[in-house]
Amino acid sequence: MGKIVPVVLCGGSGTRLWPLSRPSRPKPFLALIGENTLFEATLERASDPTKFAPPIIVAGAAHIEHIQGQLSEAADAEIIVEPAARNTAPAIALAAARLPADAVMLVCPSDHHIADTDAFVEAAGQASKLAQQGFLVAFGIDATSPETGYGYLRQGAPLGGGYRIAQFVEKPDLARAEAFLAAGDYCWNGGLFAFRAGDFLAELAEHRPAMHAAVLAATERGTSDGRLFHPDGAEFDAIQGESVDYAVMENTDQAAMVPAAMGWSDIGNWQALHEAQNTDGDGNAASGRAELMDCTNVMVRSDGPRVSAVGLENIVIVVEGDEVLVTTHAGAQLVGKLKGASGK
Amino acid sequence: MGKIVPVVLCGGSGTRLWPLSRPSRPKPFLALIGENTLFEATLERASDPTKFAPPIIVAGAAHIEHIQGQLSEAADAEIIVEPAARNTAPAIALAAARLPADAVMLVCPSDHHIADTDAFVEAAGQASKLAQQGFLVAFGIDATSPETGYGYLRQGAPLGGGYRIAQFVEKPDLARAEAFLAAGDYCWNGGLFAFRAGDFLAELAEHRPAMHAAVLAATERGTSDGRLFHPDGAEFDAIQGESVDYAVMENTDQAAMVPAAMGWSDIGNWQALHEAQNTDGDGNAASGRAELMDCTNVMVRSDGPRVSAVGLENIVIVVEGDEVLVTTHAGAQLVGKLKGASGK
Repeated sequence: MGKIVPVVLCGGSGTRLWPLSRPSRPKPFLALIGENTLFEATLERASDPTKFAPPIIVAGAAHIEHIQGQLSEAADAEIIVEPAARNTAPAIALAAARLPADAVMLVCPSDHHIADTDAFVEAAGQASKLAQQGFLVAFGIDATSPETGYGYLRQGAPLGGGYRIAQFVEKPDLARAEAFLAAGDYCWNGGLFAFRAGDFLAELAEHRPAMHAAVLAATERGTSDGRLFHPDGAEFDAIQGESVDYAVMENTDQAAMVPAAMGWSDIGNWQALHEAQNTDGDGNAASGRAELMDCTNVMVRSDGPRVSAVGLENIVIVVEGDEVLVTTHAGAQLVGKLKGASGK
Repeated sequence: MGKIVPVVLCGGSGTRLWPLSRPSRPKPFLALIGENTLFEATLERASDPTKFAPPIIVAGAAHIEHIQGQLSEAADAEIIVEPAARNTAPAIALAAARLPADAVMLVCPSDHHIADTDAFVEAAGQASKLAQQGFLVAFGIDATSPETGYGYLRQGAPLGGGYRIAQFVEKPDLARAEAFLAAGDYCWNGGLFAFRAGDFLAELAEHRPAMHAAVLAATERGTSDGRLFHPDGAEFDAIQGESVDYAVMENTDQAAMVPAAMGWSDIGNWQALHEAQNTDGDGNAASGRAELMDCTNVMVRSDGPRVSAVGLENIVIVVEGDEVLVTTHAGAQLVGKLKGASGK
């Protein structure tokens, strides 16, 4: 059995972690937890050479400089430069088209946090086995709270090491999310997938033939430049963007899932980052110069100025350059709507 | 009847409005409300030349540069430079010793806010009339909430335009403060006083003879330098510091008070400043670059960086140089205990 090929997707700019994430410093390339950036950590956790092949990285032109800077010179990786942002289905198809049909791809977003690498590698192995049997496999992230910001997967019939997917569920309201959590057979859809390149392309050809044709044409007419691969822009630009869930996973008869309890977080906002971090006995987490007096569940992050906080509860404070953000946990959902986050 | 002589006291450094107030920028010399500093506003509100004589300013050496900078060159004022900080009784006595015995002094702290200047001038006139009759008069500030941070004055027998003081009450606990507010005959002691210079010195001689003698000696041996007057340091340094309340007001048989409902605040902490400021319909007040989203009763003050606040309630945010303070209203009491506020 061949090694798993990590396919690392670097998309989006991300305004919800503003002022840390900005268009010039997208989220994957920030060290949000620990010393490594999320991108570096994504590569690191799929780097065991006995299990994983060198990665394929799919990214927009704006991200290439960050990627080259954070990828060692010697790294044996291919970087596919998306001519345009067209969501995840075309991005994954580009990688699939560059691989042998029987290669197992492991699709990994580059801006998530996974606390338990061993559990991740274990789940990747299980997913790879199902992929070898022709399944298109999603990671079913162990749901630990009634999140309304994620899509859900409902477990179907058991397979060896996993389950069929009975249903893809859109982001629910709170009542439904609580029902899912109570039912126990719903997992979060974390955007991690495993399948053989050929199986993916075959399903894409069946369900999205125009996209399939455009990706193959863009790849055939593409050009290599060192480890960079540039698909043809004219072909790719014409694609109608769509997520892999909509284009393929919800349509295939071969959808499967593997359970994954691995301390996953999409770090979708400041509250999520706070919760993913190590905190002290009062739930506080401070990086940079800070003094917290009578504070509970307070996160402080400063790139320089000292932050002094008194009497706060469930608050995030971020100082970055000439921007200061102070938000409640609940307010963290709205950060992307601030003037600063939209570059005004 | 002679004009009232404003005696403006500039003492203390004040750490409770840190990081705005710092030892190098004491509270009186900050523009906390409106364009003028508190010191400038104090002079301004007692500047009507038909009612007030030129002021006497009593301040420590560390404050002189600020005072000279904020006092117009032409201002006809005397500045008494305290050789050492010895609390309010010796400071007031220095001014009294520089005045004719029949001059009515109006003692004004320089770090308070008074919203209603007309009411202040009216109360000063009433106090002056009682002072002319030989009373030592305190302003009885209209108590509008059960404050535990102020001393209280209890009204006694009516006098023309005022009352005798029945009792000086130390800072009460909350239950007593609420009882005072309900009773209706208690006022805050705001540290504003009016008396004739000779009456004050006579009471001081009776109740604190050593202090009286030391102040007179320090004044006799003092030297003038333009509008600065330097009392003799050796005599003054030996004084045991004491407040005018303890040394004189609580001991004299001639204690009186005038009621004063004039929008007074000692701006004793960030919550008090917030409450003294003009706010929008949601109770928010922002100076500097700020965006407030879903915020109620939030005050923002920044000397440069933009502050973006989301979902906050009853919070004060101050950005000043390389210091960022975020505190609840309740926590504002503790700001002086922060490392930053103590210069660490």
